Amino acid sequence: MSRSPAPSAVPSSRTHGMISVEDHQERILGAAAPLPAVRIPLHDAFGLVLAEDVRRRWALPLFDNSAMDGYAVRRADAVDGARLRVVADLPAGSSDEPALGPGEAARIMTGAPVPADADAVVPLEETEEGTAVSSTPPSHVTVQRQPRPGAHIRRAGEDAAVDSVAVTAGTLLGPWHLSAIASAGHAHIAVHPRPRVAVISTGSELVSPDAEPLRGQIPESNSVHLAAAVREAGADVVFAAIVPDDEAALRRTLESIEADAVILSGGASVGSFDVVKAVLNGMGGVRFDAVAVRPGKPQGFGPLDDGTLAFCLPGNPVAAAVSFELFVRPALRALAGSPQARRPHRTAVAGSAWHSPRHRVQVLPAVLDGDTAHPVPRHAASAPGTPTLAGTDALIVVPAGVEEVHGGDAVTVLPLGGGALR
Amino acid sequence: MSRSPAPSAVPSSRTHGMISVEDHQERILGAAAPLPAVRIPLHDAFGLVLAEDVRRRWALPLFDNSAMDGYAVRRADAVDGARLRVVADLPAGSSDEPALGPGEAARIMTGAPVPADADAVVPLEETEEGTAVSSTPPSHVTVQRQPRPGAHIRRAGEDAAVDSVAVTAGTLLGPWHLSAIASAGHAHIAVHPRPRVAVISTGSELVSPDAEPLRGQIPESNSVHLAAAVREAGADVVFAAIVPDDEAALRRTLESIEADAVILSGGASVGSFDVVKAVLNGMGGVRFDAVAVRPGKPQGFGPLDDGTLAFCLPGNPVAAAVSFELFVRPALRALAGSPQARRPHRTAVAGSAWHSPRHRVQVLPAVLDGDTAHPVPRHAASAPGTPTLAGTDALIVVPAGVEEVHGGDAVTVLPLGGGALR
Repeated sequence: MSRSPAPSAVPSSRTHGMISVEDHQERILGAAAPLPAVRIPLHDAFGLVLAEDVRRRWALPLFDNSAMDGYAVRRADAVDGARLRVVADLPAGSSDEPALGPGEAARIMTGAPVPADADAVVPLEETEEGTAVSSTPPSHVTVQRQPRPGAHIRRAGEDAAVDSVAVTAGTLLGPWHLSAIASAGHAHIAVHPRPRVAVISTGSELVSPDAEPLRGQIPESNSVHLAAAVREAGADVVFAAIVPDDEAALRRTLESIEADAVILSGGASVGSFDVVKAVLNGMGGVRFDAVAVRPGKPQGFGPLDDGTLAFCLPGNPVAAAVSFELFVRPALRALAGSPQARRPHRTAVAGSAWHSPRHRVQVLPAVLDGDTAHPVPRHAASAPGTPTLAGTDALIVVPAGVEEVHGGDAVTVLPLGGGALR
Repeated sequence: MSRSPAPSAVPSSRTHGMISVEDHQERILGAAAPLPAVRIPLHDAFGLVLAEDVRRRWALPLFDNSAMDGYAVRRADAVDGARLRVVADLPAGSSDEPALGPGEAARIMTGAPVPADADAVVPLEETEEGTAVSSTPPSHVTVQRQPRPGAHIRRAGEDAAVDSVAVTAGTLLGPWHLSAIASAGHAHIAVHPRPRVAVISTGSELVSPDAEPLRGQIPESNSVHLAAAVREAGADVVFAAIVPDDEAALRRTLESIEADAVILSGGASVGSFDVVKAVLNGMGGVRFDAVAVRPGKPQGFGPLDDGTLAFCLPGNPVAAAVSFELFVRPALRALAGSPQARRPHRTAVAGSAWHSPRHRVQVLPAVLDGDTAHPVPRHAASAPGTPTLAGTDALIVVPAGVEEVHGGDAVTVLPLGGGALR
């Protein structure tokens, strides 16, 4: 098999020594191809992305069937007030095909096949015998009003043609898609699997949240946050750990991981990113860049030798959380096969005024209140009721070049699915 | 312990022999108390509802710390152009508390504790030595500009007070809540567990989607739909099966199930609900009612003897799906401890005109396009590009009393989280 030559490396444009958010996102999405499709039972497919169009194995409905509980009749005989002899009883699921002679009818339940001799259904409500259903049908039924031709018959094929597409490739599968696929005649489908993700928090200052932190120690929160964000993104967390600032320990941990992506945060024992950078820089295709964003400037990304995508995020909790949303989540959705890898953004109104750095995109955790986005204040200790980091449900994204945002300005927000059920 | 007398049974008001949607919903929600709280590791709590307020075990930040990479200084000495001797190096996580004499400074990284002798931090960018960080600090540093008092120092406790509430009971836990709880010093929390749900499709006419259906047979789709909807609602499917129209088989199946809720659909072999009604009516507190809604009029609900909530839905796929949204999902969210058990609704514009039954609420599967809700046409075979059931992402709810909806009318819609990631 001939290979096309690798595209020559196009250097990202740099401004003030930084690459743009868009350039970094494009480099990442360029490396995040959908995981190879697997064939799985329909019952396991909720929340996954369909890998190929699903076509109907048959026309729908499969056969002429009744839209009502009633009587299948020969319309010409079923004039106003006609008294018909009931010669058959057709529950849903019946395979019977009774002949109907002149003046004859069959009791029929919703969904049951309509006999070929019938050309209309009279609903129970339009008979003198009424709507009560007993286990045996009455011997006769009296029609109150003659039905229109074809009344209350769902015709075979009227909903969908055989081989037509029921659900298209790229669809994120919810309940309504899955039942449509079942009705189309498929119990197994091809989907992109859930990405397997490892989460590593680095930093010798990190201690478990239930420890008693000494001076300088910090209760570790990034692995909890990132693992939940991974799951919210529809991926599986296969590994989560804290690793101290020790190159050998980090190297061993990385070697033990089997995953589609590994997310590291921190490692800032001396200078940003020290241990993580020392271990990962140049490993496989990993590269470290200054990205023009605040927070989140120091970023490492690239595939390891086995193809695992490695993301090296800053250790500050807000910077790590913001970096996940900007750079990691879209990659995880792309691995999962989603054609819409990025969250939709919308416009909101700034709920207060703030400064933004001139040369960088600014990303602020915020709380949405209708169309108003309130940035979370840095220090909320003294004002109960003000937005807090815990309540963050959106990010405000201010483009580079803007230095002042005024209350009432239109701003771009990314609503987060932080409360998504799982 | 004295017991208050059981409230006398208040008969629901009936109109045209039917109880209202609201009365049926209230009867259900009255029986769906939050499941007893369990204590679990924070790492397992994503998507669950917090059962008690989480308070901070300490003030945040824990100690005065640096907001920048730079130098901790005695501000009085750090005048414009001052050359200070660097006597210590403080990485993040350092527990050192170096003394600083006159003319002395300590290199300090973001997050590291600020020595008591320092009263400001000079960022790397504001020194002549610049922003490069080597493993050993320079012997001296030259300050370009005198910092303001307290510059770049985050003071202990300025973010949050000890024992203040970090996250309140009733919160659906997303990534930002979980990291806030970790920072508040908790590695285990009390949550309401995921409801365990069994799904049973009844009907002898139902066959597996990969079978070749004979006349009268239907590929089974309700169990697939309902199981996915259960998961979308944040609950676990512990059992899913098809049971034929056989009372003994259904009884055996019900006895084998251990779950918080069981959802049955169909059973319409002769007349609606026959087998399911025969087995479940009067079992525990189960009662069957005609509810004033189309589709979905025949509904059974009540607790079984062991407390499992039983929901008996019609077998028609759209009726079962609509019934789940109206009656089952709110109950599952209530079992899960959510104070907002119902989906939020909003107003949209009708994308076409249609009729609605006078005495019942009408619920139509729809596709939302911005603010316009397009009801899914009954028969979509011939019009590619028209909304299909598979693409349903909202329900239109038309109140009883309305008989005509015109294109452009305001209508109430429930957007569905059908595509929610899991």
